[in-house]
Amino acid sequence: MVKKAGILGATGSVGQRFILLLAEHPDFELSVLGASSRSAGKKYIQAVESGWKQTSQVPKAAHDIEVKECTVENFKGCDVVFSGLEAEFADTIEREFVDNGINVISNAKSYRRDPEVPLVVPTANPEHLDVFKNRKSSGKGIHVCISNCSTAGLVVPLKALQDRFGPIESIVLTTLQAVSGAGFSPGVPSMDIIDNLVPYIGSEEDKLEWEPKKILGTVNSDGTGFNNIPDDKIKISATCTRVPVTDGHTESVALKFAKSPAPSIDEVKKALEDFSNECNSKACPSAPESLIDVLDQPNRPQPRLDRERGNGYTVSVGRVREDPVFDVKFVCLSHNTVLGAAGSGILIAELLKAKNLI
Amino acid sequence: MVKKAGILGATGSVGQRFILLLAEHPDFELSVLGASSRSAGKKYIQAVESGWKQTSQVPKAAHDIEVKECTVENFKGCDVVFSGLEAEFADTIEREFVDNGINVISNAKSYRRDPEVPLVVPTANPEHLDVFKNRKSSGKGIHVCISNCSTAGLVVPLKALQDRFGPIESIVLTTLQAVSGAGFSPGVPSMDIIDNLVPYIGSEEDKLEWEPKKILGTVNSDGTGFNNIPDDKIKISATCTRVPVTDGHTESVALKFAKSPAPSIDEVKKALEDFSNECNSKACPSAPESLIDVLDQPNRPQPRLDRERGNGYTVSVGRVREDPVFDVKFVCLSHNTVLGAAGSGILIAELLKAKNLI
Amino acid sequence: MVKKAGILGATGSVGQRFILLLAEHPDFELSVLGASSRSAGKKYIQAVESGWKQTSQVPKAAHDIEVKECTVENFKGCDVVFSGLEAEFADTIEREFVDNGINVISNAKSYRRDPEVPLVVPTANPEHLDVFKNRKSSGKGIHVCISNCSTAGLVVPLKALQDRFGPIESIVLTTLQAVSGAGFSPGVPSMDIIDNLVPYIGSEEDKLEWEPKKILGTVNSDGTGFNNIPDDKIKISATCTRVPVTDGHTESVALKFAKSPAPSIDEVKKALEDFSNECNSKACPSAPESLIDVLDQPNRPQPRLDRERGNGYTVSVGRVREDPVFDVKFVCLSHNTVLGAAGSGILIAELLKAKNLI
Amino acid sequence: MVKKAGILGATGSVGQRFILLLAEHPDFELSVLGASSRSAGKKYIQAVESGWKQTSQVPKAAHDIEVKECTVENFKGCDVVFSGLEAEFADTIEREFVDNGINVISNAKSYRRDPEVPLVVPTANPEHLDVFKNRKSSGKGIHVCISNCSTAGLVVPLKALQDRFGPIESIVLTTLQAVSGAGFSPGVPSMDIIDNLVPYIGSEEDKLEWEPKKILGTVNSDGTGFNNIPDDKIKISATCTRVPVTDGHTESVALKFAKSPAPSIDEVKKALEDFSNECNSKACPSAPESLIDVLDQPNRPQPRLDRERGNGYTVSVGRVREDPVFDVKFVCLSHNTVLGAAGSGILIAELLKAKNLI
Repeated sequence: MVKKAGILGATGSVGQRFILLLAEHPDFELSVLGASSRSAGKKYIQAVESGWKQTSQVPKAAHDIEVKECTVENFKGCDVVFSGLEAEFADTIEREFVDNGINVISNAKSYRRDPEVPLVVPTANPEHLDVFKNRKSSGKGIHVCISNCSTAGLVVPLKALQDRFGPIESIVLTTLQAVSGAGFSPGVPSMDIIDNLVPYIGSEEDKLEWEPKKILGTVNSDGTGFNNIPDDKIKISATCTRVPVTDGHTESVALKFAKSPAPSIDEVKKALEDFSNECNSKACPSAPESLIDVLDQPNRPQPRLDRERGNGYTVSVGRVREDPVFDVKFVCLSHNTVLGAAGSGILIAELLKAKNLI
Repeated sequence: MVKKAGILGATGSVGQRFILLLAEHPDFELSVLGASSRSAGKKYIQAVESGWKQTSQVPKAAHDIEVKECTVENFKGCDVVFSGLEAEFADTIEREFVDNGINVISNAKSYRRDPEVPLVVPTANPEHLDVFKNRKSSGKGIHVCISNCSTAGLVVPLKALQDRFGPIESIVLTTLQAVSGAGFSPGVPSMDIIDNLVPYIGSEEDKLEWEPKKILGTVNSDGTGFNNIPDDKIKISATCTRVPVTDGHTESVALKFAKSPAPSIDEVKKALEDFSNECNSKACPSAPESLIDVLDQPNRPQPRLDRERGNGYTVSVGRVREDPVFDVKFVCLSHNTVLGAAGSGILIAELLKAKNLI
Repeated sequence: MVKKAGILGATGSVGQRFILLLAEHPDFELSVLGASSRSAGKKYIQAVESGWKQTSQVPKAAHDIEVKECTVENFKGCDVVFSGLEAEFADTIEREFVDNGINVISNAKSYRRDPEVPLVVPTANPEHLDVFKNRKSSGKGIHVCISNCSTAGLVVPLKALQDRFGPIESIVLTTLQAVSGAGFSPGVPSMDIIDNLVPYIGSEEDKLEWEPKKILGTVNSDGTGFNNIPDDKIKISATCTRVPVTDGHTESVALKFAKSPAPSIDEVKKALEDFSNECNSKACPSAPESLIDVLDQPNRPQPRLDRERGNGYTVSVGRVREDPVFDVKFVCLSHNTVLGAAGSGILIAELLKAKNLI
Repeated sequence: MVKKAGILGATGSVGQRFILLLAEHPDFELSVLGASSRSAGKKYIQAVESGWKQTSQVPKAAHDIEVKECTVENFKGCDVVFSGLEAEFADTIEREFVDNGINVISNAKSYRRDPEVPLVVPTANPEHLDVFKNRKSSGKGIHVCISNCSTAGLVVPLKALQDRFGPIESIVLTTLQAVSGAGFSPGVPSMDIIDNLVPYIGSEEDKLEWEPKKILGTVNSDGTGFNNIPDDKIKISATCTRVPVTDGHTESVALKFAKSPAPSIDEVKKALEDFSNECNSKACPSAPESLIDVLDQPNRPQPRLDRERGNGYTVSVGRVREDPVFDVKFVCLSHNTVLGAAGSGILIAELLKAKNLI
């Protein structure tokens, strides 16, 4: 049965991606589009008139939907609500929605560290969603957070390696992140990024050094919460930079396993290639055939050439080689607005549906 | 007294930079310009007619100099010869020049690992040039190698830290390198670099993982050769990427000192700010006032805004902060065609002159 | 019935686009892939190993096809052959193919001015293909040329206007062309295009000032050849520039009609919006729903946002307004590797099939 | 004698350029720096702490100057005040300054069409400044407007041609403008300009179609005002686009002379090369040796390679050739933040000083 989907922040850049992904989705239909009072009352096509900045045009299915304010009342009939709200609004609106029994999948950072809320990259830790099976009925809606965009691309290969070889002890990484991650209006000023790069993204490194500890952690013994990896068991050092690329975050990663001797490079590549999870076994419509593509050409992955692999859901990993300081180093690439944002939201919803949780 | 300078490979991209830097130099005058037989016999302005790709025009002092072939005969009268030759030509031509008593400062990689040839970044290890004072007269010319461009920007802060705090044990770094490092014709194809980056530069990582061991090493006990740092005393892991920037290599560096406890972040910043060497004390005309600029704004250094500091001779270091895995991390930036290539050659020549070696 | 398709120059950048467009085509199947002797004998996937530079991966249908040399013998069984050859090879190979009864649709410039060969932009002058219906059987193959990429985007709106309002007397235009038009290896060097543009493309202006005269001309009275528009009836002045855009040629056009008074801006917009031709009436699978999209937002069309309209077959026209010197000015945008190259070839083949000519 | 200079809007992007140009100027000294009340009271170096976006660092001469509010009182002692104010503030503040006897040279658009205020590109129409010699003393300050940035680069070659060959009847041009023209915070969003261009700049075409009529006009018969060229004597059609270039506006120009037969291409090139005016004869310190550089290489001028000619004061003209529709076409390039903004202001001040008007 087709589920009714709502979108919070439907006119923003994340909201626009939700629209595109849902417009032709077999399992969800666009039902309620929420935005600020400035847009409320307009048809969606009018509300985004000059602000639609996608490379595909506004889907016809969305044209005539009337934009509503983001109230519980307006979204009551939705089976699931995707939130593309800025954190300042997500703080209160999402809480209110969930408290009133509405299921919310959020791209905002607001609740990622909340011990009650799973932080899920669907191609990495879909099993974290099972806490909702085990929790007692509370009348509350399901609340799931999508990870930060740069976290998503990193944790998929980390999870593949941890599953096969056990704990990872240390990670030093540098990201080269696309400008779409900063939004459109204005996002990154062009004078900052033509013939230039910016070796800093506000509060990004904190997220990237913390979120993997939750995502790579386990569901706790009673199946209702999470055991994060303790700070002294995994050390992560991140430097985040912004580069002149529209879409696609590239990450240069060096890591050390707890296990010694470390696996060989061939074993590492095999573990990455073999990786699959519930996204595949449950045949979610958006799940890519391959969660990770391991590339052998020395100059890959490249954002422009590889970001669309698996429609943006596949993480590309290349340059897998021995590290002179740690055990292994590689370069990974993920699509920051698909796997790193709206796309993960859709895939989480597909998983929740496959698990009969929505 | 003004010294006569020759240039090997004068029409290429490195040669053009030598021309620009020498044209108005107080201590050197353009004397012989060497290129391939295709250019020989032409006036310089004609030889570079369609190939001059600098943001300043061809200096008038070079216009009418007749280009010569790269023979010993043609360069006999030069006090110093700067080589911008490709390695395949440098292999034989530089050797022949030096064997015939001509002093050569080379940007080619050919002799960087030769134990007889100092590998010098002038703002890092000018003292390596002193071997020529101590060696017995042999009739040979002086032969000095400029480091690889990505090495230059790294070793200056490393040297400052090693001088103050002792050996560095481990370094993990990722570079974001400008396209000018790959030359002009054709260099990096534009389809590889618009809305894209390439996470690979052929053989660059090898250079970056090896060259610092020689540069950070010492002159040996009899003062005529070099003690490289042994492989087991310093471990370097480099990932080199090419980004859409014209000039300026940015490097994201994490490192661990041998000494424990490690110095504080403030001590590290102080050591970087305080760093000076013979370039300053000998008052070389091209030496920058400050060898290292430590930047406090969180989003600096940036290539477009900081690469011209000290006319391209100053290394900018920013984002100095504690590293969760090692001791300290920072981002450094250097001008790859000045400090990382031709400019270092000029400053080496100034040092040799100041030391009365040419 | 599915037709057998061959590709000449299958490993080059235009050939790669033919592969992508044919791999999932309902009416054509990849049959013979021709390339140089260097690639011959290899499987296609191996032949393009490091040279595949598309944003989609090599289609599975092409992986295992053995690359052949470009001989008549090898292509004898093809219903149609698409040529992505460079002009120097197209000169002789295409002639030989056609003389031997093979149908060739060519992206090369070699035969565009040949009075026997139609020069066709399918969304502009599909009726030029009818000459093959009227010519006596000769045993020769059909030979059709695709226009230059910058011509394609221009002539579609021009044809719409000429059809409605009669002859156009004068056109002054400046193009802002994407780098993909120059190929990949090496194409435009990145040092020429980062923080830069090049106001010149070799021999491009000649093509753009001549080709519309043939395309906007008529089939002659006996239906076998072409009446080009004479030089004194239409004057075209073009300036062609290269800008840092991967795909999509933008053209700033000002024009004067022969007719006076000129049509109003609203009439011009209506004529553009209404335009359709045989591509639509014959229901070619690749034909876009709309041949021309007229955009009302003042800052459109933009290459990144509009080049994929109609899967790259729709020309976008915006900023339609009165011209203080001539009658009307506008900005048009077309996808240079779809409508401007391989895509037009596919659509021409669809038209030939619909007309029972192949 | 060194003149005291004030700057209105000293912390903005135009103000920063005034600072750079004045800091080492032989004839002017930085005296008063005005900005909004938010900055008032701070030292300049603090006021621009995170907003300084120039490729040179803040000049030492400006570091410790205390920023003041933009009141007449604060600027009373200045010999000349340069205004980098946004139009909304310039409207009232400049008027008040001038009414109170302060000399103002403004980059704002506010008074460009005021018949009392000369609109001056110093390398085009310096003689317009002479009205101040002829006007009766009024107690008011001198008020001069700098032209729009895209106008500046156009009118210099137009003036050279008009001086030699008489009136120009028609001009059709398309501009390819740098993003620095839109300022920094935020200016053009990067998502609009990576792998993209925008074929529209709000109200720019109006300026470019009007301003040349005043600049190319004459001082009236009593020497106190201006005779603009009437609309029916010169027709200008402009299309303005924004391209991914930091600095340097490129313009593709086709034009027709009133005179028939038109001058030959060689005569046109000669007229451009020969052009000089009071900037040269009065030996203004910033005036370039050559007001126009005529480039013969077919692929020039290019922004990155030619914008710094004459320190940004020289207009480069290339591709001078016959136009199939009009008489002649060419591509011109000028530095939009030097000749097109702050630089022209400085040169105007030098002219006023040379004319003993300040």
